[in-house]
Amino acid sequence: MADSPNCDLKSLSPLQLFERVTEQGEKVRALKAGKAPKDEIDAAVRMLLSLKLSYKTTTGQDYQAGLPPRDLVLINNGTTKEEDEDFVDPWTVQTSNAKGVDYDKLIVRFGSSKIDTDLINRIERAIGQKPHRFLRRGIFFSHRDMDQILNAYENKKSFYLYTGRGPSSQAMHVGHLIPFIFTKWLQEVFDVPLVIQLTDDEKYLWKDLTTEKAYDYARENAKDIIACGFDINKTFIFSDLDYLGTSTGFYKNIVKVQKHVTFNQVKGIFGFTDSDCIGKISFPAIQAAPSFSSSFPQIFNGKENIQCLIPCAIDQDPYFRMTRDVAPRIGQPKPALLHSVFFPALQGAQTKMSASDPNSSIFLTDTPKQIKTKINKHAFSGGRDTIEEHRKYGGNCDVDVSFMYLTFFLEDDDRLEQLKQAYTSGELLTGELKKVLIETLQPLIAAHQERRKQVTDEMVKQFMTPRKLAFEF
Amino acid sequence: MADSPNCDLKSLSPLQLFERVTEQGEKVRALKAGKAPKDEIDAAVRMLLSLKLSYKTTTGQDYQAGLPPRDLVLINNGTTKEEDEDFVDPWTVQTSNAKGVDYDKLIVRFGSSKIDTDLINRIERAIGQKPHRFLRRGIFFSHRDMDQILNAYENKKSFYLYTGRGPSSQAMHVGHLIPFIFTKWLQEVFDVPLVIQLTDDEKYLWKDLTTEKAYDYARENAKDIIACGFDINKTFIFSDLDYLGTSTGFYKNIVKVQKHVTFNQVKGIFGFTDSDCIGKISFPAIQAAPSFSSSFPQIFNGKENIQCLIPCAIDQDPYFRMTRDVAPRIGQPKPALLHSVFFPALQGAQTKMSASDPNSSIFLTDTPKQIKTKINKHAFSGGRDTIEEHRKYGGNCDVDVSFMYLTFFLEDDDRLEQLKQAYTSGELLTGELKKVLIETLQPLIAAHQERRKQVTDEMVKQFMTPRKLAFEF
Repeated sequence: MADSPNCDLKSLSPLQLFERVTEQGEKVRALKAGKAPKDEIDAAVRMLLSLKLSYKTTTGQDYQAGLPPRDLVLINNGTTKEEDEDFVDPWTVQTSNAKGVDYDKLIVRFGSSKIDTDLINRIERAIGQKPHRFLRRGIFFSHRDMDQILNAYENKKSFYLYTGRGPSSQAMHVGHLIPFIFTKWLQEVFDVPLVIQLTDDEKYLWKDLTTEKAYDYARENAKDIIACGFDINKTFIFSDLDYLGTSTGFYKNIVKVQKHVTFNQVKGIFGFTDSDCIGKISFPAIQAAPSFSSSFPQIFNGKENIQCLIPCAIDQDPYFRMTRDVAPRIGQPKPALLHSVFFPALQGAQTKMSASDPNSSIFLTDTPKQIKTKINKHAFSGGRDTIEEHRKYGGNCDVDVSFMYLTFFLEDDDRLEQLKQAYTSGELLTGELKKVLIETLQPLIAAHQERRKQVTDEMVKQFMTPRKLAFEF
Repeated sequence: MADSPNCDLKSLSPLQLFERVTEQGEKVRALKAGKAPKDEIDAAVRMLLSLKLSYKTTTGQDYQAGLPPRDLVLINNGTTKEEDEDFVDPWTVQTSNAKGVDYDKLIVRFGSSKIDTDLINRIERAIGQKPHRFLRRGIFFSHRDMDQILNAYENKKSFYLYTGRGPSSQAMHVGHLIPFIFTKWLQEVFDVPLVIQLTDDEKYLWKDLTTEKAYDYARENAKDIIACGFDINKTFIFSDLDYLGTSTGFYKNIVKVQKHVTFNQVKGIFGFTDSDCIGKISFPAIQAAPSFSSSFPQIFNGKENIQCLIPCAIDQDPYFRMTRDVAPRIGQPKPALLHSVFFPALQGAQTKMSASDPNSSIFLTDTPKQIKTKINKHAFSGGRDTIEEHRKYGGNCDVDVSFMYLTFFLEDDDRLEQLKQAYTSGELLTGELKKVLIETLQPLIAAHQERRKQVTDEMVKQFMTPRKLAFEF
């Protein structure tokens, strides 16, 4: 941070300012805790006050710790109103742009960091192999503290991975696989243990489901997750409804988080209201707690304060912003994060897909014929209305869902680039592009179905049994 | 309920009206669920609407389910304002009356029922022995559904007991023993299993304590509780921090309660605010869940829907009003309750005692000398200023703390009555009355200390291990 904070503060958004005040507050706390010289502390406090003043001038509101500016008209910028912007929280993703959410803006609003070429190169050096296509293509595009993970890794200090899924139905679609495909790759290249949370309690609270049904969905979803190829010796999958009653560490961390987060804060972060049930209001602590290794005494052999890395879609970030805010106050390390973009619906990138609409995506249970029909019938095309126009003006890869899906699933970079050029120039027709996607997805899904068939109830039980995982810390 | 509800409604308090509307709402739901004849349902709905109208006329507010009228000036009764009344919730007990809280009024406000002579006689018939002095003397003075417990018991259907304590410090005073002394008696005369919740998580959330310290207090308090003489084969004592992580049933019931209670409701019942942490806000579900036998699969051998009876001080009733409201909606029986008065502080009956003020009560660790000094020095006297006046006008047992303590601890009814008459007539002096109390308490506490010494860590471990309890259901 610059010594004189005010000179460049006018260009910052309320959220950036909010993050600056928060950071500076942490700095002051750290200096005080470390018994730094008085003049150093005084200078830091002055800067904090100055930042708070800027925040108030810009937003018209007092700074409140843990309460980022929400639903806010940006008064410094007369033309941009929140209503025109994308809306992203764990339950809603809305954009009016056919290209999808503006992720660069989201990075600024959430206060995370872009995964840039430097970071990707550094990951490549650390692991000694080519980074995953999701990194190469900006599908995982944002992070928090990934440099710290790499610093530690380069110094032979290990970490663990944490990701999850809300089991709202038996049906999983290809989009649901994105975090798991990437997490499996991270587990392999870094050789680290992994915990996967299935928030069946969340689904019970939010949906019209019994606890039994939510738990059934969790077990069914676990089979699809296992079919991604996770290492059974390094992976623990758990249902909240089940694990909370079998872990001596999990509830203790939950209640610690719950002590340090107010209703005002979850209201600001998640938009809860007074009419929401107390289960929803306290749930964020349950998604937060697996970020702390002491939630898994059996798995890490009681070892605490192991650094955690969370790969997830960006809409889950609010949970972990909250977690990172609480972590130092309960003596735990902040989890690092890797954020992915949203997987687009077949109908277009304006929204996330819905597991309740069978035509909104390719499901993991779809037959080759269903895959073909869905893509041909529903995949939004960036092509022109007639063949003549298409040949003349070319197609638009930025909004073409078949092309988007290929960026997720076609491994060959050169082939993808060729397709892009051919489609953009008009040489390749929409039907031909769709055919490539069909031929890419059909074998992938068939293979997944084959692997899923191999997943026995016994294997599910093993994955879901709390036990010491293989790791070297 | 009378067929024409309006004739007598004007005499009801807002809270009584509230309870009537709630009951009628439940009746309508039950009729609909039971597919009752249409005209029967219509009549019940008409009565519900009529009751809601009376509620609105009386209180000036719309009826809101689960939100009893709080902080309300009783507009039907110009002279009585809420501010002049006693205030009772789980954290605060306030009264301006030296005799203590007006319990008859509390029964009306809370909508519970008085334990009258008929009920006491019926208990005597059911158990075939003299009721406990706490019943004979109105120390347990209020109940909910105790008749149902007795109906079931007389039909050879059993139940279980649930009580608890918030372990806020190592020090327990004689007042803390009241629910345990009574519960032990209930366990003996009805021969039923018992669960005792130590809410160390609550104390962690409300106080400046670590989870470790709260758990330590729980284990220390367990020793004093065990020293009351509970049957190890029929009693399970648990710390929330510990048991939540070892029970497959407890968390499931907690999350079910949490789904059916809104922030609005806990705000109305417990006075929580937006600045309270989400742990406090969701905690009431944790005190509610042990009311359902499925929270203890190991203990009841997986048997569900066993009726629960909760002996507790009346200030805990808000938790169980909430529990009783939720129970039918999650398919569980409502717990029945027996409410006790508060144990007065040595300084007088205006407030509950405080474990943090060593002179506010007799502690279980006090020596005979400390007991003597405390009573002589601090016990509020209902006697006169001079011996002459006392002999002439007599003392006032209604405000005399030594006499109050004797009603709790002196078993002999005749002796107590003699003391009362002698003190009231002026024959017995304050110093003499105090001497009787000292001589009553000294051996009781010495015996407790002796029994507590016998409580080994191994016994605590046994009591706190989830295991099948001895019962015949």
